[in-house]
Amino acid sequence: MQKSDLLSVYQRIKPYVHNTPVHHSRLIDDLAKCELYLKCENFQKGGAYKIRGATNAILQLTDEERSRGVVTHSSGNFAQAVSLSAKNLGVPAYIVMPTNAPKAKKAGTIAYEGIITECEPTIEAREKASQKIQEETGASFLHPSNQLEVIHGQGTACYELLQEGIDFDYIVTPVGGGGLIAGTCLFANTFSPKTKVIGAEPENVDDAYRSLISGKIETNETTNTIADGLRTNLGNHNFPIIQKHVDQIIRVSEDQIVAAMRLVWERMKVIIEPSSAVAVAAVLYNQDVFQGKKVGVIISGGNVDLENLPF
Amino acid sequence: MQKSDLLSVYQRIKPYVHNTPVHHSRLIDDLAKCELYLKCENFQKGGAYKIRGATNAILQLTDEERSRGVVTHSSGNFAQAVSLSAKNLGVPAYIVMPTNAPKAKKAGTIAYEGIITECEPTIEAREKASQKIQEETGASFLHPSNQLEVIHGQGTACYELLQEGIDFDYIVTPVGGGGLIAGTCLFANTFSPKTKVIGAEPENVDDAYRSLISGKIETNETTNTIADGLRTNLGNHNFPIIQKHVDQIIRVSEDQIVAAMRLVWERMKVIIEPSSAVAVAAVLYNQDVFQGKKVGVIISGGNVDLENLPF
Repeated sequence: MQKSDLLSVYQRIKPYVHNTPVHHSRLIDDLAKCELYLKCENFQKGGAYKIRGATNAILQLTDEERSRGVVTHSSGNFAQAVSLSAKNLGVPAYIVMPTNAPKAKKAGTIAYEGIITECEPTIEAREKASQKIQEETGASFLHPSNQLEVIHGQGTACYELLQEGIDFDYIVTPVGGGGLIAGTCLFANTFSPKTKVIGAEPENVDDAYRSLISGKIETNETTNTIADGLRTNLGNHNFPIIQKHVDQIIRVSEDQIVAAMRLVWERMKVIIEPSSAVAVAAVLYNQDVFQGKKVGVIISGGNVDLENLPF
Repeated sequence: MQKSDLLSVYQRIKPYVHNTPVHHSRLIDDLAKCELYLKCENFQKGGAYKIRGATNAILQLTDEERSRGVVTHSSGNFAQAVSLSAKNLGVPAYIVMPTNAPKAKKAGTIAYEGIITECEPTIEAREKASQKIQEETGASFLHPSNQLEVIHGQGTACYELLQEGIDFDYIVTPVGGGGLIAGTCLFANTFSPKTKVIGAEPENVDDAYRSLISGKIETNETTNTIADGLRTNLGNHNFPIIQKHVDQIIRVSEDQIVAAMRLVWERMKVIIEPSSAVAVAAVLYNQDVFQGKKVGVIISGGNVDLENLPF
């Protein structure tokens, strides 16, 4: 992508998204021993960055395609994002959600008038159910992370962060399906080449970490992590971007995720979801990498089931 | 107070406090049927507005007074505020806290190097303990709500909110000891006379509501509310200001407080404490007053004990 192409993506979606605030805490800087800036996409419309990619993808459909609607499968944040951006643009949205998706995310999807179909919590079941809807309605499939229009849209959060005038050494994002980090890489590499992009992943679902070592897309044998947004695997469209531009993937334990989440809630009064806490934990617990540096973290979202908190 | 005096207060404390952001949610506007703007003092240093009043009071002490330190009693937010502003200004801070103060508030006070003395959770015990410290150390007493320097400082949150360029019909604050609402009144009346100030109080501790009816300071027979910051009574310095300038006090139930708190957490991803939720609840559940209006709410703080949540 040329610089002008990436700027076009940002200009296209800008009227439909918030330029979310960047929060900073001296107290947390003291603990982390670095300057830590949180790009608060939890304050984004729909409670997560994902409306950026969904909006960019829908805006590139023809009128005729839009009239048939869009379909996706998602454990939650992308479901809300597609529902909301489709609603904003007058497009029907069919959403396949696993039965174990957090309640708050289901409620949000319904509030944004997404048409929900439930399925078993496996990637196969999700793909099969959305395939069926595509065949029946002619809706365009939107992939939560492995589609270039979506990837480009997600990267605009990084673009806004870079506009803050902070000379970032690192930008850290959580890694689930790979859309956020791939988009982040593209914008960081183009607009601030000296800034390194690091991914953060739960130890229990470290497929991206293993993929970068093996050179091929690895999968997870379990989905046993509190970071419900990060249970998925990389895809063939985002993996080459990640291979080319990501500095490293840092893995964190479940305890570290919960401690980081609690710290941000208690000290910054900002509700971040476990998937976002993964990226904060990577910074807090790896001072050998981050000490003395300027670090931006993309807080992916704040959609949490309050009846099922880890503390 | 003249306009220039109030501006001096703001100029005095400005270097020591955050100009906190104002958050707004279309989704919550739809529910509340009004335009609702939250002045997020939960993002203030110390997690609450109270550093404003504490800083204004300490800055008006002589050097000699400062060397002997300051003392206060508080269930939490003012304790953290005095500790932090005293620490910023190199002044020792003696803090009397009731044994039932939330853990997070105690931890915050310790983090800011406040010297804690515990006492029974009654106003009498708090006053006795702080009296003793005054006698022993010569420290200056700072009252959390009933001291003009403190009241003036607290009002600066309202001043910043009025600078946002929104033509507010109402500003709503929670009412505990009366310092925040009295300060808010003074600034609103001076800088935006058409804006009415409304207080919000739990039904279970509705001393301010009854005080405005009876014309004298009423007390509470119980402290049985989740809004731990609002269990105290008005004082002789703030009551005349409140009598003169407050439009009305709205009372809310415990269920309404919890529902409002949950709504803001879930939909806005912002951690507000129960005392702040009291003011949000007043707006949500009194559409006869607020429908179609522009309403600002001072979110007093975000200090919550995460191990003891009501949901």
